[in-house]
Amino acid sequence: MVNQPELIALDREVEQMGLSASDAVRKMSEGQLTSEELVLDYLKRIEAHEPEVAAWAYIDPRIALEQAKTLDEKRLKGNILGPLHGIPIGLKDIIDTADMPTENGSDLFAGRIPERDATVTRLLREAGAVILGKTVTTEFALSGARATRNPYDLKRTPGGSSSGSAAAVSDHMVPLALGSQTGGSMLRPASFCGVHGFKPSYGSVSRTGVFILSRRLDHLGVYAQNLNDLALVGDVLMVRDYDDVEMCQYADQSLVGALAQQFSGTPRLAIFKGRPWDFVEKGVSSIFQDTIVQLESAIQDAHIPPIVEEALSVHEVIMDASAAANPGRYLAHAEKLLPETVKRISVGDEILASDYIVAIDKAERIRYALDQVLEKVDALVTLSAPGEAPLGLKSTGNPVFQKIWTLTGMPAISLPMMKGPNGMPIGLQLIGRRGHDAELFRTAQWVEGKCS
Amino acid sequence: MVNQPELIALDREVEQMGLSASDAVRKMSEGQLTSEELVLDYLKRIEAHEPEVAAWAYIDPRIALEQAKTLDEKRLKGNILGPLHGIPIGLKDIIDTADMPTENGSDLFAGRIPERDATVTRLLREAGAVILGKTVTTEFALSGARATRNPYDLKRTPGGSSSGSAAAVSDHMVPLALGSQTGGSMLRPASFCGVHGFKPSYGSVSRTGVFILSRRLDHLGVYAQNLNDLALVGDVLMVRDYDDVEMCQYADQSLVGALAQQFSGTPRLAIFKGRPWDFVEKGVSSIFQDTIVQLESAIQDAHIPPIVEEALSVHEVIMDASAAANPGRYLAHAEKLLPETVKRISVGDEILASDYIVAIDKAERIRYALDQVLEKVDALVTLSAPGEAPLGLKSTGNPVFQKIWTLTGMPAISLPMMKGPNGMPIGLQLIGRRGHDAELFRTAQWVEGKCS
Repeated sequence: MVNQPELIALDREVEQMGLSASDAVRKMSEGQLTSEELVLDYLKRIEAHEPEVAAWAYIDPRIALEQAKTLDEKRLKGNILGPLHGIPIGLKDIIDTADMPTENGSDLFAGRIPERDATVTRLLREAGAVILGKTVTTEFALSGARATRNPYDLKRTPGGSSSGSAAAVSDHMVPLALGSQTGGSMLRPASFCGVHGFKPSYGSVSRTGVFILSRRLDHLGVYAQNLNDLALVGDVLMVRDYDDVEMCQYADQSLVGALAQQFSGTPRLAIFKGRPWDFVEKGVSSIFQDTIVQLESAIQDAHIPPIVEEALSVHEVIMDASAAANPGRYLAHAEKLLPETVKRISVGDEILASDYIVAIDKAERIRYALDQVLEKVDALVTLSAPGEAPLGLKSTGNPVFQKIWTLTGMPAISLPMMKGPNGMPIGLQLIGRRGHDAELFRTAQWVEGKCS
Repeated sequence: MVNQPELIALDREVEQMGLSASDAVRKMSEGQLTSEELVLDYLKRIEAHEPEVAAWAYIDPRIALEQAKTLDEKRLKGNILGPLHGIPIGLKDIIDTADMPTENGSDLFAGRIPERDATVTRLLREAGAVILGKTVTTEFALSGARATRNPYDLKRTPGGSSSGSAAAVSDHMVPLALGSQTGGSMLRPASFCGVHGFKPSYGSVSRTGVFILSRRLDHLGVYAQNLNDLALVGDVLMVRDYDDVEMCQYADQSLVGALAQQFSGTPRLAIFKGRPWDFVEKGVSSIFQDTIVQLESAIQDAHIPPIVEEALSVHEVIMDASAAANPGRYLAHAEKLLPETVKRISVGDEILASDYIVAIDKAERIRYALDQVLEKVDALVTLSAPGEAPLGLKSTGNPVFQKIWTLTGMPAISLPMMKGPNGMPIGLQLIGRRGHDAELFRTAQWVEGKCS
């Protein structure tokens, strides 16, 4: 694990900081902690650090504390709502909340309060979570950055588009947060901010009530401090919602349950290189080698079928066309949008349907080719980003290490296991078979055990 | 059932004519009939009628008889390959066969012999079928008609694009044939030619080795003389093929098995009208009413959600864009294509990807809305075509009664139960829930029983 750099030291005076969600669940169930106490601690942390980190789009301590108190009262009556009872979580500000604004990172939606919760918001509330607040997103989850800074180095980007969610978990302002990924928006920020990140299989988490960037590519995901916490939230989210017509993968196994069973034997892991590796920064390749050498006999080389080489350009066609189709409808209000957004949603304006259809067909063939690879190994292993979080806040960094798995809908986990040349975190990314998220968790647990 | 009109009377001198595939299977298993005898009878029938009907793109009696003899020998040794052992079938000429040309209805592919069988061809051979020959298709399964005539009236179209398959089964040149549907190409010809037709759920039959018009819309289907025969072939075809990456529905129940169980009680049937009904020809609506009145208490009115009104225009965008993307690649050889084809594949040239994406999203919402309707009823009931087969061979008629179910991938069956003002057949169409093809067969059996 990477050491927390000194720019923002952890305030250990705030008692519960560093506590994982799973630990908090246990302490509450043992009567050693209330949700109100926990939420108050996080609010103190946010008060102290938010001026520098700028992770939150909206937070109202009263709304947060009110939820916590209600949940504490229910607990006293023996009414435990679910596995997240009393645990605070942050939601990327493209996820609708009926009691807080949801602005999609855009001035165009300033002050917008949705009529109803997104399906995932509802599932979290039903599981007993406290919706602590809304986290900063780039505009429309595209590339137009907002003000969030990387807690490991305030001069660096936290990544995007799920900037606030990754930064808030990294800075211990909240133990859990949801983000989304259409290009590389979940696991790149996880890598840059040194947190655990999970992008589930495509179609396994509802996107009803979430800003649509691309129905073909949009995924929701989770940030947390460890695998158990990712699994805890993943199990709550992976429930079929008939209102998201593209839902197609349904959890056949509990993620928490998968972690309770150790991996029997040694998983077969294959290193994935290919095109994204062209972007790897100086010195990072050897850091990766030093890490995976610990995995010993588990490691082999993945034979990657040639069509996978086309994945990045195929993703680009689908992403650009989708941006033109969905957020593109707001171009009429260009004066209220970031120049970067206007540029981004105009790129795909002239893409022809026939080229899009060819790209979709190729995407399915790429997925099929990678499915074949993943029938022979338990997971692919690669970097979560080409290097450390870049300096500056304008660019949120390069999503190249996520695009293939976003395109193919395969589940991916980023483990904060490496440290770059400047001491900044870099994630190790594991990719599993679509629909086999539980198996990926078990493999990831084995990898962490081997490298700790 | 419609009476066979007099233009081409059934040649009863050809002994086995009128025998269903299921009957032939039984007779063969009882040693009363050989595959060679059966194939010879069909070849005689074809020799007599093919000059007028023009249903076949390719037929070589030697290849057909050789298969039959080999299968008869295997039977003598007790080696029964499968449920279609010794039964002849015709394949639409967009389905690859390694031993016969596959020309996709186009001079551009004249004499093309594929390297390997399509997956469905292989499945049929493995089940013991005799591939009798290839049937006429419009060019690229679009609207450019070839020379096939309707056996009920040679001055009328058999419908298209599966013109030859429907006409050959109608004229008793073969007991079974495969066709395909991207717009209305399976069940419109079934209606016009007075045969039973089945378009399975989207993604339940492999399209590997079949000419691609639209991966999003292409379905394969079956023509036969009765429901049992459709079920017999359907069970052989509905097998997962990992090479067709869009396969998503897998038969959870045998169709033949479903027919062996009677429908318990009365199915809930709902009449579907909406947009396609605007095209219904004079006098046909009352014929439909007279038919469904026999279904008595089973019949109710379907409440159709407003978004379904958009299905026809949504289908058009997807179909036109797909034609531009797939057969559109042959535009460089326009001089070898039918003018109708060149026109058809040029229509979608300028459709933008963003408009296509909006159409795909709507298609999913339409499917969702109709899924909800079909949770409350066992099947929707409607016409299979706006009326009788039109006069003339240039147009293959109006596909408007199929487009919604092609778009939503719902299984549909056409039953030849009505007779139009000119004595030509008209089909009754039943539509079921996607992935619930077996239930639809059971409902269709009940409907036939009620109306016979």
